[in-house]
Amino acid sequence: VPGDHDPTDRAYAEALDAADPLASFRDEFVIADDDVCYLDGNSLGRLPKATEEALRRVVSEEWGTGLVRGWSRWIDRPAQVGDRLGRAVLGAGPGQVLVADSTTVNLYRLAAAALDARPDRGAIVADPADFPTDRYVLQGLAAERGRRLRRLRAVRTDAVARACAPGDVALVCLSHVDFRTAALAPLAEITAAAHAAGALVLWDLSHSAGVVPVSLDAAGVDLAAGCTYKYLFSGPGAPAWVYVRAEQQRRLRAPVWGWFAQRDQFAMGGAFRRADGVTGWLTGTPSVLGLAAVDEGIGLVERAGVEAIRAKSVALTELVIALFDAWLAPLGFELMTTRLAAGRGSHVAVRHPEAWRLCRVLAEQDAVIADFRPPDVVRLGFSPLTTRFAEAWTGAERLRRACAERRYERVESVRPRVT
Amino acid sequence: VPGDHDPTDRAYAEALDAADPLASFRDEFVIADDDVCYLDGNSLGRLPKATEEALRRVVSEEWGTGLVRGWSRWIDRPAQVGDRLGRAVLGAGPGQVLVADSTTVNLYRLAAAALDARPDRGAIVADPADFPTDRYVLQGLAAERGRRLRRLRAVRTDAVARACAPGDVALVCLSHVDFRTAALAPLAEITAAAHAAGALVLWDLSHSAGVVPVSLDAAGVDLAAGCTYKYLFSGPGAPAWVYVRAEQQRRLRAPVWGWFAQRDQFAMGGAFRRADGVTGWLTGTPSVLGLAAVDEGIGLVERAGVEAIRAKSVALTELVIALFDAWLAPLGFELMTTRLAAGRGSHVAVRHPEAWRLCRVLAEQDAVIADFRPPDVVRLGFSPLTTRFAEAWTGAERLRRACAERRYERVESVRPRVT
Repeated sequence: VPGDHDPTDRAYAEALDAADPLASFRDEFVIADDDVCYLDGNSLGRLPKATEEALRRVVSEEWGTGLVRGWSRWIDRPAQVGDRLGRAVLGAGPGQVLVADSTTVNLYRLAAAALDARPDRGAIVADPADFPTDRYVLQGLAAERGRRLRRLRAVRTDAVARACAPGDVALVCLSHVDFRTAALAPLAEITAAAHAAGALVLWDLSHSAGVVPVSLDAAGVDLAAGCTYKYLFSGPGAPAWVYVRAEQQRRLRAPVWGWFAQRDQFAMGGAFRRADGVTGWLTGTPSVLGLAAVDEGIGLVERAGVEAIRAKSVALTELVIALFDAWLAPLGFELMTTRLAAGRGSHVAVRHPEAWRLCRVLAEQDAVIADFRPPDVVRLGFSPLTTRFAEAWTGAERLRRACAERRYERVESVRPRVT
Repeated sequence: VPGDHDPTDRAYAEALDAADPLASFRDEFVIADDDVCYLDGNSLGRLPKATEEALRRVVSEEWGTGLVRGWSRWIDRPAQVGDRLGRAVLGAGPGQVLVADSTTVNLYRLAAAALDARPDRGAIVADPADFPTDRYVLQGLAAERGRRLRRLRAVRTDAVARACAPGDVALVCLSHVDFRTAALAPLAEITAAAHAAGALVLWDLSHSAGVVPVSLDAAGVDLAAGCTYKYLFSGPGAPAWVYVRAEQQRRLRAPVWGWFAQRDQFAMGGAFRRADGVTGWLTGTPSVLGLAAVDEGIGLVERAGVEAIRAKSVALTELVIALFDAWLAPLGFELMTTRLAAGRGSHVAVRHPEAWRLCRVLAEQDAVIADFRPPDVVRLGFSPLTTRFAEAWTGAERLRRACAERRYERVESVRPRVT
């Protein structure tokens, strides 16, 4: 890659692709149309080819042929796949991660457990700009259990320390990467600040797991959860995960007492006796198909390595920020994502008053799938195992053209229910 | 079918198969080995051929090709598939059923909602012989919310009326069909008795949905939940369902406030505003693959009709009870399932001190998959769309032989963790 380069020259992006050590991973995914710029892997990651085969196997062979006997293997999958996720992605030693349920249900049950563990503390520190489900879950729990939500001004260590200073905070619950701006929170520092004030910490890693290196054990995190359908390529509505730090597993009380959390489950005993370890944090029957897909998705990330994925992620966002400066800033776009590589995740958010209609033009006329977020944000997401530099370049270039040529003026401005 | 018949003659079972109007449905399922007697469809239903194709389509086409754009259709699937389940299986009008989450999580959130709606009532009526997850969920909620569990002596209307008489019952939570004995509860009568005492009612229909006609609307049921992997053929860990009666949808408060329950979800507004109708009872991102499988499973039941399925179910259990009398009773087996067809679901439970080892012999030597339930129960389950009369006959005959020949004596008695 030339040192003296012009990012607006497509040849530069192509040179980055030619030098990309992860380039061959794209061949391991289903790419139905190579001309589509898919810049929404931060909403839904692409389909790995191995997942098609794994799902066929679990459906036709394990279920179709093995029938109920499959449970002798399936029963351990939430913890097995969780251990693999912990090792490859989360910086978590074995016996602390489960793949199960949805992110929403997991946030609910972990936050509820944290509140129960701090009955004398009335406050929950949350980010008013956090992803909706995180905010709603906390609002619901706060209403139900008579706690106050304390809104954080910014996801920064000093702000968390200040918010926790009164000594009344039970739980700090935040996202590692902001779904809108891509701001990357200082996870270890904030965790330490919350702990110093006696609060428990719950992190949502939906927008970082698989694309940003994470060290939950080393950072002393109590609880974490996240989805698997973004940078872990596990498919729409695939099971989510929970991390419950080993030392918190018995201290905290899991609110949903389900049969998969029962010690000696198939004795079907009368009283609930929670299983030791992370198993005690299971709930009901896990999705066997979903687990097969999650396992394959993690496998790809494991093979590539999160450090290498992160390096490409940084390079992709750097390229697009350079193109923002050259192309988009002059057209009135505003950059919402930090220029500091260490402070951002794997997407770049730009604002424009016509964001919604521009996304429509991109999708309908330009084969660019980007993501609109209200009120005026376009998210350009980069999934390093599948996004090419030239693809990111093309996406930015088409966004420039759609805006410069004012093609959005010919698109209806009414938004559908799903965006 | 001859009127004057000998049930111990295999020709009789074969005549029943020849006259079975549902016989052809078996061809619509994957039957890897026609010689296996699969008498455990009440744990995990067989794989429909259409489901293999539906899953291939949703994975390779909808996810692989459509990518994130699939959400414009997927978003409505929990309610659409729920409506179909309501119409075909549950006797529920539209807008009251969702396919989402697990049975355990659904029992938790429905029971929690019921308790919140009766804050001045301290008791929960439950069945101490109910399926483990039902009992554990209620134990957990009772402990968390300072309520008492009142154990029902029998799942009978008079017993429920007596248990509710003190006027302090918030919730009656029971299973429609007992997972062990197959006893079928008088759902409408018990619901009326509970209502007369001011309690809310939550039914678990895991062992009846798809095999016993149900009329949730007509019976006045408040809340119900159940799995889809038994008589609805949706696969291991497929999403479960909830029924929330229309008039209770706004009265009750859903405990888990997730983004799929938010009015105008993709506006991503600051405060949780619960969507009208049953949508307000969604939680997080639903399993798109799971929903595809559930839809196919329901489709088969819809086409066959629950009344026809029930008729065959009764005939299957009658045959096996006749074989019990002829073969098993003399060997010391005890019948746990009622002889009254109207009082049982679709399996027959027999007790024998060697139940565990007999199940092992059947599975390992006789290609009969039946289900052991501690301490001494063999469940013989019949799934009318896939179980042949001759298959049921063979299962009973092999059980007789395994016992009569005392082959269980050569099998280890140590039970593995999963049974």
